[in-house]
Amino acid sequence: MTESYELLEPEKVAAYIDSRADLAARVDTSTLDVTEVGDGNLNLVFVCKDASGRGLVLKQALPYVRLVGPSWPFTPKRAVAEARAYEVHGRFAAEYLPEFYGFDEPRYILAMEDLTDHRVWRGALTDGERHDGAAADIGRYVARVAFHTSLFGIEAKAVKELAAAAISPELCEITEDLVLTEPFSGAERNWFQDELAAAAASLQTDELKARAGELKWAFMTRAEALIHGDLHTGSVMVRDGSTRAFDSEFTFYGPVAFDLALPWSNFIVTLARDAVLGRAEHGAWVETLFEELWDAFEAEFRSLWPGVVDPRVFNELYLERWLAQTQRDAAAFAATEAARRIVGLAHVPDLETLDVEPRAVAGRAVIETVKRLLLDRPDTAGEVRAIAREEVARG
Amino acid sequence: MTESYELLEPEKVAAYIDSRADLAARVDTSTLDVTEVGDGNLNLVFVCKDASGRGLVLKQALPYVRLVGPSWPFTPKRAVAEARAYEVHGRFAAEYLPEFYGFDEPRYILAMEDLTDHRVWRGALTDGERHDGAAADIGRYVARVAFHTSLFGIEAKAVKELAAAAISPELCEITEDLVLTEPFSGAERNWFQDELAAAAASLQTDELKARAGELKWAFMTRAEALIHGDLHTGSVMVRDGSTRAFDSEFTFYGPVAFDLALPWSNFIVTLARDAVLGRAEHGAWVETLFEELWDAFEAEFRSLWPGVVDPRVFNELYLERWLAQTQRDAAAFAATEAARRIVGLAHVPDLETLDVEPRAVAGRAVIETVKRLLLDRPDTAGEVRAIAREEVARG
Repeated sequence: MTESYELLEPEKVAAYIDSRADLAARVDTSTLDVTEVGDGNLNLVFVCKDASGRGLVLKQALPYVRLVGPSWPFTPKRAVAEARAYEVHGRFAAEYLPEFYGFDEPRYILAMEDLTDHRVWRGALTDGERHDGAAADIGRYVARVAFHTSLFGIEAKAVKELAAAAISPELCEITEDLVLTEPFSGAERNWFQDELAAAAASLQTDELKARAGELKWAFMTRAEALIHGDLHTGSVMVRDGSTRAFDSEFTFYGPVAFDLALPWSNFIVTLARDAVLGRAEHGAWVETLFEELWDAFEAEFRSLWPGVVDPRVFNELYLERWLAQTQRDAAAFAATEAARRIVGLAHVPDLETLDVEPRAVAGRAVIETVKRLLLDRPDTAGEVRAIAREEVARG
Repeated sequence: MTESYELLEPEKVAAYIDSRADLAARVDTSTLDVTEVGDGNLNLVFVCKDASGRGLVLKQALPYVRLVGPSWPFTPKRAVAEARAYEVHGRFAAEYLPEFYGFDEPRYILAMEDLTDHRVWRGALTDGERHDGAAADIGRYVARVAFHTSLFGIEAKAVKELAAAAISPELCEITEDLVLTEPFSGAERNWFQDELAAAAASLQTDELKARAGELKWAFMTRAEALIHGDLHTGSVMVRDGSTRAFDSEFTFYGPVAFDLALPWSNFIVTLARDAVLGRAEHGAWVETLFEELWDAFEAEFRSLWPGVVDPRVFNELYLERWLAQTQRDAAAFAATEAARRIVGLAHVPDLETLDVEPRAVAGRAVIETVKRLLLDRPDTAGEVRAIAREEVARG
C-alpha cells in the first residue's frame, strides 16, 4: 500500500521553507536557487542556495522505489529512521555528519546542511582522487556509534528501548536479500556481465551459502548498536579535512562489524579498478585504507573504553576479544557486500564505467577475493588487504 | 515506584473467580478450597479446588520482592510477559505447558491449569526420584520455541515486532547481574559457605570475567527466539508421562542456548548431590540427562527444519553449524548458572539441604566444573557430562 502525501517540487521549495519555522531563517528564500539532485532511487533531494551563498538540503522519501516506479511501494518511514540516526549520532559524532536542521514527519522531509562543497567518496575514489584521513574519520565515527549506542556506553534499559523503537524490518529486508542472500542463492533480479557467468555461479556453493547464512543470522539477531546500516562509500561525503556520513535510512540495532565492512568492500572494488586501469600509485594508497579505517576505529574505541558503563565483566581482556571478533566479522560482511556489487541487483559505477574486458577482469578479482574472505576467514584488516591485493594482482 | 493494585487473599478468591467470565465455569466456587502455595519470592499463588475435584491456579505478581519486602519494588509487568509466553508457546508446544485460562492484566493475575498432581522437578531430583523422559520433553519444548519464534519458523517482520514488544529490561537485569556477572565479579549480596571461600575467589580471574562478559553480551544482544528465560528445574513440573514448563516471566528474545543451559546446570548440581550422598544409581541416571535433553532438542529441531521459512542460505550445512554453536553456547551458559547457585544471591535446596561437609564437597565440585566448562570450552552435551562426572568423582 502506497502512502499518500504531497511530494515537493522545485518551484514549491521556497514557499515550503518559509512555512517551516526551523528553516525560514537559514536562507533568503527570495533569492533561492533550487536544484533536484537525487541520484538515489528512493528519495527526492533538493539543494537550495540563496544569493549570499547560504544553503540547505531537503530530502524527501518517496513512497516507492524510483527505479521501478509506483509498482514497488516502499515505506517512507525510513525517513523517520534517518532522522533518528542524525539525532542520536549527532550527540557524540556531530563532526562526521551533516548538520541536521529538522524533520517534517508527516511529509517525510529532512532538512540538513548543504554539503555541495564536498563530493561523494565513491566518485572521488573512482576518479583516482586521494582524500587522506577520510577512512580514519569513518573509523572514528563507527567507534563512537558502537560505544555510545551500545551496552558499553549507555544503560541497558536505554539500549533495549532504543533498539525496540529502531526496528526496521522493511529496510533490513533489502540488505538481508540483496547483500546477505541473493549473491549466494541466485535470484531473478541478479545480473552481471556475460563474462562473469562462471564467477557468479562459483558463489553458489553449499559452503558459501552456509557462510552467508551465518552472516545473515548475525545481521538479523545481533542488536549491538544503532549502526548506520548502509555505510558504503556512496553514503560518505568528503572534502579536504571533512568527512560526513549521510543517507542513514538503513539504521537499526545491528552488528557493529557491518558498518566497518561496507567501506572495506568498496576499497576492494577500488583496488580492482585501479589495477585494471594501471593506477598503481592510487592502488597502493587504497591498500592503506583497510588498516587506516580499522586502526582509527580501534584507537577511538579504546579511548572510550574507560567510560564503560558496567566494567564488572566487560574487562580489558573482554575488550580485546570483542575487538578481535568484530574485526573478523567485518572481513566476512565485507565479502557479502562486495559480492553483491558484482552479481546482485545494485552495482556500482566504480566497475560499471570500465570497458568490457577490464571490467570482467576486475569483477573476477573481486569474486575471488569474496570467496577467500569467506573461506579463509581472515582475522585482521591487514589480512583482508593482503587477500584483495593478491587476487587483484592475479588479474 | 511501587504500583498500586489489589492483592488477592484466600477468602476473596471464590468471589474473584465468579467475577471472571473466563473462569467462573471452571470450578464450583460454592465448594472451593483455596490454598496459598507461593514459595517463590515474587508472586502469590493460589491453588483452588472444588468438591468435585476440578481446580485451577491463580498466580498474581507482587509489586515487590517478597524476600526483601516493599523496599525492593519490582515491576509486576512481568506477568504480562508470562502471559505472552504461555499464549505464544501454547500455539506449538501446548503439551509442555500448563493450560492457560486467561489473564487479568490490571491486577496481574494469571489463571492456569492446576498441576498439583505433578511435582516440581527440582524437588524430585533432590529426592533422588527418576522421571524418565522429562529431560527429553524439555529438549523438545525448547526446540519448538527455538524454531517457531525465530527467523527459521516465522517471517522476519513478525519476529522483529514480537522481539520489540517482548523487551524486558528489568527481568533481564536480574539474570544479567545474578547469573552473568556477580559470581565472577563478586558482589555484596553474594554468599556462600565459609568452606567455599577459596573456591568462590577462584572464579574472579580476568579470564573468567572475560568469559562471563562474552556470555553476558550474547545474552543481552542476541535476539534469537522468545525463550523461556528461567528454565531451571524449579520451573518445570513433572509427573509420569507429563512435563510442563511454567514461571516463564523471564521470557524475552534471547539466545536459544540459554534455555538448554539451565537444565544442564541443574543436572550438574544434582550429580554433585548424588555423589556426596552415595546415590550412585541415581547419579548414573542423571548423567544420561545431558544428552537426553540435547538429543531430543536436536531431533525435534531437525524434524522442524524442512519448514524453514527462507531456506536460500539457511541450508543444511548452516543448520549443522547453528546446532553446533548452540550446543557450545549452552555449555558455557550452564557454567554461569551453576556458579551462581553456589556463590550468588539465590541458592538451591539441592545443595543447601546437605550437611556442612558434603555440601562443601559438592559445592567445590560444581565450582571446578564451572571453571572447566568456561576454560575448556566443551563442544557437546557428552563433554559437559564427562567434565561434571570427573569433577564430582574427584570429590
